[in-house]
Amino acid sequence: MKSRAAVLYGPGEEFKVEEIEVDDPKTGEVLVHIAASGLCHSDYHMVTGEFGPLHFPMIGGHEGAGVVEKVGEGVTRVKEGDHVMLTFIPACGKCRFCSMGSSQLCDRGANILAGPQLDGTFRLHTEGGDDAGQFCLISTFSEYTVVPEDSIVPIEDDLDMTKVCIAGCCVPTGFGSAVNKADVQPGETVAVFGIGGIGINAIQGAAVGGAAKVIAVDPVDFKLEMAEELGATHTVNPNSEDPVEKIVELTNGVGADKAIVTIDNVLPEHIGTAHRAIRKGGRAVIVGIANAQHQTIEVSPFELVLFAKEIVGTLYGDSTVHADLPRYLETYRSGKLKIDELITNTYTLDEINQGYKDMLDGKNLRGVIVYDWARQ
Amino acid sequence: MKSRAAVLYGPGEEFKVEEIEVDDPKTGEVLVHIAASGLCHSDYHMVTGEFGPLHFPMIGGHEGAGVVEKVGEGVTRVKEGDHVMLTFIPACGKCRFCSMGSSQLCDRGANILAGPQLDGTFRLHTEGGDDAGQFCLISTFSEYTVVPEDSIVPIEDDLDMTKVCIAGCCVPTGFGSAVNKADVQPGETVAVFGIGGIGINAIQGAAVGGAAKVIAVDPVDFKLEMAEELGATHTVNPNSEDPVEKIVELTNGVGADKAIVTIDNVLPEHIGTAHRAIRKGGRAVIVGIANAQHQTIEVSPFELVLFAKEIVGTLYGDSTVHADLPRYLETYRSGKLKIDELITNTYTLDEINQGYKDMLDGKNLRGVIVYDWARQ
Repeated sequence: MKSRAAVLYGPGEEFKVEEIEVDDPKTGEVLVHIAASGLCHSDYHMVTGEFGPLHFPMIGGHEGAGVVEKVGEGVTRVKEGDHVMLTFIPACGKCRFCSMGSSQLCDRGANILAGPQLDGTFRLHTEGGDDAGQFCLISTFSEYTVVPEDSIVPIEDDLDMTKVCIAGCCVPTGFGSAVNKADVQPGETVAVFGIGGIGINAIQGAAVGGAAKVIAVDPVDFKLEMAEELGATHTVNPNSEDPVEKIVELTNGVGADKAIVTIDNVLPEHIGTAHRAIRKGGRAVIVGIANAQHQTIEVSPFELVLFAKEIVGTLYGDSTVHADLPRYLETYRSGKLKIDELITNTYTLDEINQGYKDMLDGKNLRGVIVYDWARQ
Repeated sequence: MKSRAAVLYGPGEEFKVEEIEVDDPKTGEVLVHIAASGLCHSDYHMVTGEFGPLHFPMIGGHEGAGVVEKVGEGVTRVKEGDHVMLTFIPACGKCRFCSMGSSQLCDRGANILAGPQLDGTFRLHTEGGDDAGQFCLISTFSEYTVVPEDSIVPIEDDLDMTKVCIAGCCVPTGFGSAVNKADVQPGETVAVFGIGGIGINAIQGAAVGGAAKVIAVDPVDFKLEMAEELGATHTVNPNSEDPVEKIVELTNGVGADKAIVTIDNVLPEHIGTAHRAIRKGGRAVIVGIANAQHQTIEVSPFELVLFAKEIVGTLYGDSTVHADLPRYLETYRSGKLKIDELITNTYTLDEINQGYKDMLDGKNLRGVIVYDWARQ
């Protein structure tokens, strides 16, 4: 079938919206009619060429929600008409990591950036007939897409897909980084570096987890204001104050219990800043993706040991696809986790490049593409 | 009173054995007649000038056992004649860290390298009448020493003090790094980098914790042989094989569940090696003290996040002074933890510089000074 999609032909180019060809789902796959897709910085790493090796042309988009249009052989958990959220992490449920409750590390996720489906072949094809790679197996920048059943979470029909579409990436990654990996406890001090789509959810996670002081650090004042609205008790603009000094001052010289670094294109010195901002025995949770060319982090190994600090990476905020995502949606329903408020601007598919420009200009907490059929 | 002690007058010098003056214990302090003291690499950091700022002259020695000679006002947990083990970490029992079960991070430990006692004054004085600093508050390189009650663990009289003297430093630091911080689980693969006094105990901790594969990495063959005797299932000499390649091969391409880096004078690239040797979601526990001049560790921040790895420092193997040390001694009594076998050579106090030379030459797993009165 035909579908309009945003295709990236190579690093340094813009997304080109064109009509592509979508194959039928194969065994274990699902054809989804996408309602909305978030615009995450991670897709932009394809544009800047920081991810690789990738199969170009590539169709981006790795957070979205939609309606099942058709299921392939062997698909048992969803049927035509079901509402689903797509996740950029597949969870097979059977590998060692899924079995140990770490489905975010599912072995099927090993090559999700490469482009083809799990069987090594392609379901999407460009206007010109070339195989198009699928970013994180899902490609939500297409009206229709074929994805593995492993990458799907069924959701209730009454949830607004144009809102919860972002609950497949920035919500679990940010909220989970606080409640799971940082394991925020009541009364703690938590510093969040970088207030984008992920950071704002880390702020919410720290607040829901009971932190007494939630310190938001970002150079963009509008983002700091949003952070205050959604749970931050203090804000620091690094252009006017030194974040480490401020955090140490706010904690009477002790340092934060936990730091969460959600800056995208995270630099070695950002991790160093978080390391210096935490107390002895404290934990710095690193969420933001760095350019693969960096081979060091600016952490003093002497202090790491003498102050028994922890520097830990997390993928998907240590959230499990099939247990935690439904739980986060319940938190959303309860009113404790805000999602609607995170969406600063919506775009049509044709406006995708403007959406990324706005993201880079710091105008969006989260931008979302809403497909025409799902607009109200 | 008079006491013979090994005094270091400054970086780059040798220890000078001379007769010092020892004051009476003040409130909360204990005068101990030392039976034996381990020769740990950490003291040698004073010699090379890597620790600082320190008060010179300084009297080294931070693991030892002895008999209480006299107690100061307010001391309640020990009395004259009690056998005690000294710990280089004081545990006050009241600060936030002690209260949360992390007494290895006790606030009183903040300035243990500086030299004076907790009240800022000195108990030991050189032959020439100068105040002598006490390394880690205890200075076990002296026949008699005054230490805080916080730095003492009572032990049963039947334990051989010339053996269990090392149970105050290298045993908790190494064994604890495996059973506490690496949290070794049955069937896991654990790689230990550096087989000295700490590494050999990490090997034992991994084995007692049930690891299926315990991989010892060290350039000295005699240490690898010792590791095999005490629990290692595989050994790697990095001069003849690449440790990361070997560990990945031994785990069918997955990587070790845990790595423990006990190399002393740990370099940024050693931490990088451990990081590359662990599986996704794996943990690298850093135990070895680095030169404070290093400001980076050679870890790819991209891989840290994408493979959700953990780089964690630990002090004292996350062992609590008053709960875990007695437990380790019970493990020793049960025969599962070997201590006697770790002592390669013993020395008189006058032979201390030869002891350090042997350590640097890789001849000792652990050297121990046994004071004349405790020799049999």
